[in-house]
Amino acid sequence: MYELNLIGIGTGNPDHVTFQGAKAIREADLILIPHKGEDKADLAGLREEIIRQVTETAPRIAYFDIPKRRSDDGYLQGVDDWHDAIALRWQQAIAAHPQAKQVALLIWGDPSLYDSSLRIASRLDPRPETRVIPGITALQALTAAHAIPINDIGAPYVVTTGRRIRDEGWPGNAGKVAVMLDGECSFQSLEMADYDIWWGAYVGMKEEILIHGRLVEVAAEILAKRACARAEHGWIMDIYLLKKRGN
Amino acid sequence: MYELNLIGIGTGNPDHVTFQGAKAIREADLILIPHKGEDKADLAGLREEIIRQVTETAPRIAYFDIPKRRSDDGYLQGVDDWHDAIALRWQQAIAAHPQAKQVALLIWGDPSLYDSSLRIASRLDPRPETRVIPGITALQALTAAHAIPINDIGAPYVVTTGRRIRDEGWPGNAGKVAVMLDGECSFQSLEMADYDIWWGAYVGMKEEILIHGRLVEVAAEILAKRACARAEHGWIMDIYLLKKRGN
Repeated sequence: MYELNLIGIGTGNPDHVTFQGAKAIREADLILIPHKGEDKADLAGLREEIIRQVTETAPRIAYFDIPKRRSDDGYLQGVDDWHDAIALRWQQAIAAHPQAKQVALLIWGDPSLYDSSLRIASRLDPRPETRVIPGITALQALTAAHAIPINDIGAPYVVTTGRRIRDEGWPGNAGKVAVMLDGECSFQSLEMADYDIWWGAYVGMKEEILIHGRLVEVAAEILAKRACARAEHGWIMDIYLLKKRGN
Repeated sequence: MYELNLIGIGTGNPDHVTFQGAKAIREADLILIPHKGEDKADLAGLREEIIRQVTETAPRIAYFDIPKRRSDDGYLQGVDDWHDAIALRWQQAIAAHPQAKQVALLIWGDPSLYDSSLRIASRLDPRPETRVIPGITALQALTAAHAIPINDIGAPYVVTTGRRIRDEGWPGNAGKVAVMLDGECSFQSLEMADYDIWWGAYVGMKEEILIHGRLVEVAAEILAKRACARAEHGWIMDIYLLKKRGN
């Protein structure tokens, strides 16, 4: 039986990797990587670069295909089926290397934040011991890039998704809200005069773009720069922090 | 004029340091460290260990005293005055090394999460360029240790403080809430039968203690182990994630 290591690698800057992550990569005798070209961000390339950076001898890498996600049975059912399908690919890739005792996956950001790996791992049969190694999240790369605290002094904050902002609006009486997984600039569904925004795309990477200001004044600039960068790079990943004005 | 580097170092495991953090430590020509013995966790010792781990030649270290926090004018005023007083100590320590171009502070966790350093830095006169290098937070060390995601699929979560839980109760219709800065086991103020808890103390460190279960069933164990560990080590830092049952 093997141990599964889910290693957070940060948000595209190879120097986000922690010493703990680097050690876990060195100790792995099998690393699973999704096939190149399957995601537009070329994360496969990033993962290979990180492996080269922290190991002297090339570890054994098993590539696997990421199946397409179906959405015809509703969002959550689609996610559930998709996790089943990915678990099957992991299982097949691992079964082909029965001698591997330490299997690793390199996870964008942190395996505990808006990531499927723990849920996929729980579908493996037999279920391996799973070790999580935290990594720098996009939210941290965003606040670092803007050099701002995420919270006001002693105050709470909410982390949510673009979908929730569109469907449910501003969460209750929150003062600050971080929005992740937003492909649609969902801040447009809010009363934009009431908020300040700290927005970032490709945070932590050399392509990083940052915009900050009163939402109603910078929204058009964000939409334009986002569309332009997405066209230029072929993909985009963005994130933002909103603060209710007058709070 | 110098640049100020606020470097997140994680939560007590020297291997939480990122490559980016290690580079910034190596490039610093002056590192400010609070005097040994000023905090019970001996973070000064941890910081010195990390510096030794990542540098070949000993960098210049300036120690400073952390002034006492007054609380007689209310919580926020007390914090405000305290930040002024710390800024003065930083300023004096830096002024004694006018040749320093890269000044660094090693910040427990991440400089953007429930940390005062950015607010203190903004009081420096003249105000230096400030660079933030993200680090692993206690919240990440907690979810990694329990090997759990912080969020349910596509769902939001709230990060708040023990004080807020005591004063305001459960935040609105939140499903999951992470509680930081809680010296008083404030979960006791909730209807404990309604929640599950993932609790951790000294998360990421060799002293780590983890407890998970239905809050009403494990609360007494948490209180007892927490009191015992605090007495044994002379200090404690704990954090927890709560999930409303039936969500």
